Amino acid sequence: MTQKTIKVGIVGGTGYTGVELLRLLAQHPDCEMRVITSRKEAGMGVAEMFSNLRGRVSLKFSEPSAAALTACDVVFFATPNGVAMNEARALYDAGVRLIDIAADFRIKDVALWEKWYGMKHACPELVAEAVYGLPEINREKIRDARLVANPGCYPTAVQLGFLPLIESGMVDLGHMIADAKSGVSGAGRKAEVHTLFAEASDNFKAYGVTGHRHLPEITQGLTQVAAAPVRLVFVPHLTPMIRGIHATLYARLTGPVDLQSIYEKRYAQEAFVDVMPTGSHPDTRSVRGANHCRIAVHRPQDGDTAVVLSVIDNLVKGAAGQAVQNMNIMFGLPEATGLGQIALLP
Amino acid sequence: MTQKTIKVGIVGGTGYTGVELLRLLAQHPDCEMRVITSRKEAGMGVAEMFSNLRGRVSLKFSEPSAAALTACDVVFFATPNGVAMNEARALYDAGVRLIDIAADFRIKDVALWEKWYGMKHACPELVAEAVYGLPEINREKIRDARLVANPGCYPTAVQLGFLPLIESGMVDLGHMIADAKSGVSGAGRKAEVHTLFAEASDNFKAYGVTGHRHLPEITQGLTQVAAAPVRLVFVPHLTPMIRGIHATLYARLTGPVDLQSIYEKRYAQEAFVDVMPTGSHPDTRSVRGANHCRIAVHRPQDGDTAVVLSVIDNLVKGAAGQAVQNMNIMFGLPEATGLGQIALLP
Amino acid sequence: MTQKTIKVGIVGGTGYTGVELLRLLAQHPDCEMRVITSRKEAGMGVAEMFSNLRGRVSLKFSEPSAAALTACDVVFFATPNGVAMNEARALYDAGVRLIDIAADFRIKDVALWEKWYGMKHACPELVAEAVYGLPEINREKIRDARLVANPGCYPTAVQLGFLPLIESGMVDLGHMIADAKSGVSGAGRKAEVHTLFAEASDNFKAYGVTGHRHLPEITQGLTQVAAAPVRLVFVPHLTPMIRGIHATLYARLTGPVDLQSIYEKRYAQEAFVDVMPTGSHPDTRSVRGANHCRIAVHRPQDGDTAVVLSVIDNLVKGAAGQAVQNMNIMFGLPEATGLGQIALLP
Amino acid sequence: MTQKTIKVGIVGGTGYTGVELLRLLAQHPDCEMRVITSRKEAGMGVAEMFSNLRGRVSLKFSEPSAAALTACDVVFFATPNGVAMNEARALYDAGVRLIDIAADFRIKDVALWEKWYGMKHACPELVAEAVYGLPEINREKIRDARLVANPGCYPTAVQLGFLPLIESGMVDLGHMIADAKSGVSGAGRKAEVHTLFAEASDNFKAYGVTGHRHLPEITQGLTQVAAAPVRLVFVPHLTPMIRGIHATLYARLTGPVDLQSIYEKRYAQEAFVDVMPTGSHPDTRSVRGANHCRIAVHRPQDGDTAVVLSVIDNLVKGAAGQAVQNMNIMFGLPEATGLGQIALLP
Repeated sequence: MTQKTIKVGIVGGTGYTGVELLRLLAQHPDCEMRVITSRKEAGMGVAEMFSNLRGRVSLKFSEPSAAALTACDVVFFATPNGVAMNEARALYDAGVRLIDIAADFRIKDVALWEKWYGMKHACPELVAEAVYGLPEINREKIRDARLVANPGCYPTAVQLGFLPLIESGMVDLGHMIADAKSGVSGAGRKAEVHTLFAEASDNFKAYGVTGHRHLPEITQGLTQVAAAPVRLVFVPHLTPMIRGIHATLYARLTGPVDLQSIYEKRYAQEAFVDVMPTGSHPDTRSVRGANHCRIAVHRPQDGDTAVVLSVIDNLVKGAAGQAVQNMNIMFGLPEATGLGQIALLP
Repeated sequence: MTQKTIKVGIVGGTGYTGVELLRLLAQHPDCEMRVITSRKEAGMGVAEMFSNLRGRVSLKFSEPSAAALTACDVVFFATPNGVAMNEARALYDAGVRLIDIAADFRIKDVALWEKWYGMKHACPELVAEAVYGLPEINREKIRDARLVANPGCYPTAVQLGFLPLIESGMVDLGHMIADAKSGVSGAGRKAEVHTLFAEASDNFKAYGVTGHRHLPEITQGLTQVAAAPVRLVFVPHLTPMIRGIHATLYARLTGPVDLQSIYEKRYAQEAFVDVMPTGSHPDTRSVRGANHCRIAVHRPQDGDTAVVLSVIDNLVKGAAGQAVQNMNIMFGLPEATGLGQIALLP
Repeated sequence: MTQKTIKVGIVGGTGYTGVELLRLLAQHPDCEMRVITSRKEAGMGVAEMFSNLRGRVSLKFSEPSAAALTACDVVFFATPNGVAMNEARALYDAGVRLIDIAADFRIKDVALWEKWYGMKHACPELVAEAVYGLPEINREKIRDARLVANPGCYPTAVQLGFLPLIESGMVDLGHMIADAKSGVSGAGRKAEVHTLFAEASDNFKAYGVTGHRHLPEITQGLTQVAAAPVRLVFVPHLTPMIRGIHATLYARLTGPVDLQSIYEKRYAQEAFVDVMPTGSHPDTRSVRGANHCRIAVHRPQDGDTAVVLSVIDNLVKGAAGQAVQNMNIMFGLPEATGLGQIALLP
Repeated sequence: MTQKTIKVGIVGGTGYTGVELLRLLAQHPDCEMRVITSRKEAGMGVAEMFSNLRGRVSLKFSEPSAAALTACDVVFFATPNGVAMNEARALYDAGVRLIDIAADFRIKDVALWEKWYGMKHACPELVAEAVYGLPEINREKIRDARLVANPGCYPTAVQLGFLPLIESGMVDLGHMIADAKSGVSGAGRKAEVHTLFAEASDNFKAYGVTGHRHLPEITQGLTQVAAAPVRLVFVPHLTPMIRGIHATLYARLTGPVDLQSIYEKRYAQEAFVDVMPTGSHPDTRSVRGANHCRIAVHRPQDGDTAVVLSVIDNLVKGAAGQAVQNMNIMFGLPEATGLGQIALLP
């Protein structure tokens, strides 16, 4: 069923995912933003906080209110981890469709989630209901989902990058490596020292090598595709740019495979995955502000190691854009509706 | 007369103004890009050079050809200074409407132009025909113009910033100061040492204090509005950001004036000039990728000096966006057609 | 009297001024760092927090202790504003010489200080004792000072830039303008949203146009030199670079003056002020990590407005470096001792 | 034999390696810079080109002259690849000791060099004479070397990172991976489009995945240490920072090994290699402007893959600093002479 106008609510929205969601929804032809809640900023105009929205978004932040949200067709959670799981139940029961851009419903193994996120899950029964919102894998399930767990940014870039390779069956699943680099907006709009300009600019560092929350999410996704255990070494790095993820993926090939061909075939029908010509090196700016994932595949020195380069904008395909893509699927709209922005280059 | 589809040609287009023009035109509902010429890159797909356009622009650069351009309704020159003046005559005579994003037709005093640009003008007779394409001043003339001289980036920010003040008549015209800061894309996509990342990053400097080509252009514009000689000190600076101009303008007030009020009134009907609330400090990212100029006015310590803060994206309102705005006016389209992009923040 | 080894204490030291002071003192041949206090980080090795100091500074942060500090010859306050005024008295009475890198003792008019800094001054009687530590003006007084108020970063760049002009007597004191641009480290190592990388990078904005705390400090300094009231419009801007201040200064000339000559003469004997050749545009990176102020003077279009470009590293000549320079003067060392670092370029 | 003052000549010196070498030599207590040649800039003061050297380096660029260079004790080549091989012979025969910071003498297999560098080697007989200047491996040979081939930047970071692991014998030599990220200064001070600020800022990309010239250099070094063939996948990336290399190294362990311990032991006596505590993530700024390599070792999820993080400043330990270190060794000076700079942080 296609609806002319989708009534949209947003919980949270003062972070980078929030402002990006607002930017996209304000340009979406079939959405009407009805309510955006923020306990802390209630009463403030959204465009007062984010001046790029002046003249385009007249909404004000309001106190969280079940009533206002219940009147919506879909509610996005653009909140820190741990918020959606407390508020989803009531909205779910009221028939509102939910898209959680945070991590609360991504990991099916609740105990595993609790270990990595360091809190008790408040709503484990909805975890099973939730559909993992990576359209390139789960499109059909998303269509009818009442609760979508929008993937993390690293997991989106890494899974899309590894997917055709794993499906080919020609890869050593026990020794996969994802060396991923993220722009600083990935850390969110939180006042913290390590993401200050004077700390993160003109600097490069790895972090979380011991273990990052996106590791179990990626492993879960790859394992499901492989239908066999996958062992991944995942090393994220902080890069002095605002937006963008560049995942450099390494996998040992176990048999003959035409990399370029399997990638092109796998993504031939995908509007938002662009397999670049042989020999390419996608740059993150080629997707800045756009909902695309661009991928290039290499096999250096014709050895047995495949190298996959996968780039996304962490706030778009890695968060708000993919959320809108999921909404489009859920409401029967053409999947690219409102997502036609061309990346800003330079 | 409104045309359904405007046939567009672009001369040049391998620079930043060019790729930005392509980004905007590819999202414009009433344009059909027919030809883009580049002697050097003829045969190469536009999207091969600018990967953000993959899947959106299928055009290839072609050899300059009068025939192909003559078949267009409008031709944009996104060329270095000195090119348009050599090619405009023939197209003009063929009835093609022209928008020169370079500087060839901006200065009415040809001798003055020749002094600042260091070359003989090849087509002085068209200089008089050309309409200076600052819509907020010349909208009516632009409507019927056959040749539009699209303003420079600094001149756009500075003129829009000073305009209401000069119109108020309450300002010392002999001592105006424009301290302007530009992102590095303003220097163009030319291989030069001083704009290398390792030179321009984490660094700040003034340049051209002795004299910058945009000085006579700004002075001409302000003088015309004032109907009296204006003397301006103009100091441009190179700032380590990609896009954006921030003009900080100083003018001595000669009588009582309600700054906020005159600015708000002057621009009340302008779609692309946003006068911010009292006390604001516009940031350049609030217009990144958008066609807006945002302005705030101050009077520090209630002294006799007005301080105006004016920001634009040098590639949009300062170049390609304003060119599209001019095209819309010339072809009777709503002025904001195809220019609805919301600035990318963060 | 020259001392072989100066026993140094630092109060604070977890901020950018602190780590810069440590970097300089660790390379100073006549200093022995004895104690560095931080209530919050007591017990942590300094080099654990600042990994550039690994192998060079073995000191640990310790609980504030009067005894340990009293045993020092000199104590630097690298603390937020309002701390030194509470702790200075006891150390002063114990005969320790003090250098406050914060603002507590800079403004002679205590009521004015209280207005701008929004707190009651805890130690007004020492304000009169304090010597304003700009060596180029106050060298002789600094020699015997028991308490030095180290100048602010903007005030250093602006005062050094205006000084020869004011001393020339050929300038309109009622209409001076300082358009100043600072790197983000000037905001300190505090967890705040507006100085996050994703906020401050690829962006430019003015701030504090209505009034900035450095305005009264600069005005006090200039007024003292002029021996007449000075009226200054001061507009600071946040620039996407880590270190550096670029002050662009405008002053109306009231009579004939050879700008280049008066600047060269005024600073001929100064080790840390470099007057560049006619026509120069100093860049901030030319002083990155060094204790120099580089200045160039211009008179655009031979008009009546002088334009002075003055650059410093806000953490060196604008803070820690000038503090060490003051210490050298106070202890009879050659003024440049330990300050021989050459700026890091690129 | 220790010499009091080493007479130094520099060929080239207008690039980033050159200005960095000048910065270091100007602070070196035992060096006298006698001549710096540049055909293109002959007559220009070095400090005119690099304003950070004002007041510190009075030398002018001069026409290349064998006589002037022959009078030196040591000559550094800070030239593009292919220059030193043409000029080394004469100086070598005259008894001048040579340090080539470019790549001409790094690869022992001349045919291999010619393949990767795309030119005929002009002086193959000196290749055998040349000592590869990685002091942590070749210190003794460097002492008496008449020609030192200073290592590349990536090769320095990667080799120092892999060295203890390879020496342990507990690693799969056939599947080593170096995912390396470099600041843009690594591309040199050449006018090129892809390293312009507006191209490289706020962007991240891999390059040369198919094959990079540093691959054979690294492979040669690792193979020599392993005394067995090593197969390396090497993926370099361009990062939006000025200086710094971050190498993230992956190797499959083939037996039990205490990573932290073998690294600490291997480098215990090395002045310029800092093994950080367990769990660390070195950042590139911790070596900005300093001659250190900082290394941390990890074994994620206690799997069989070792992850080594190795950072250097590409212009210091990766070029000019290591060259000075080699000079110190060659002339019997304490190895750290003149290399005491502490990294600039922030």
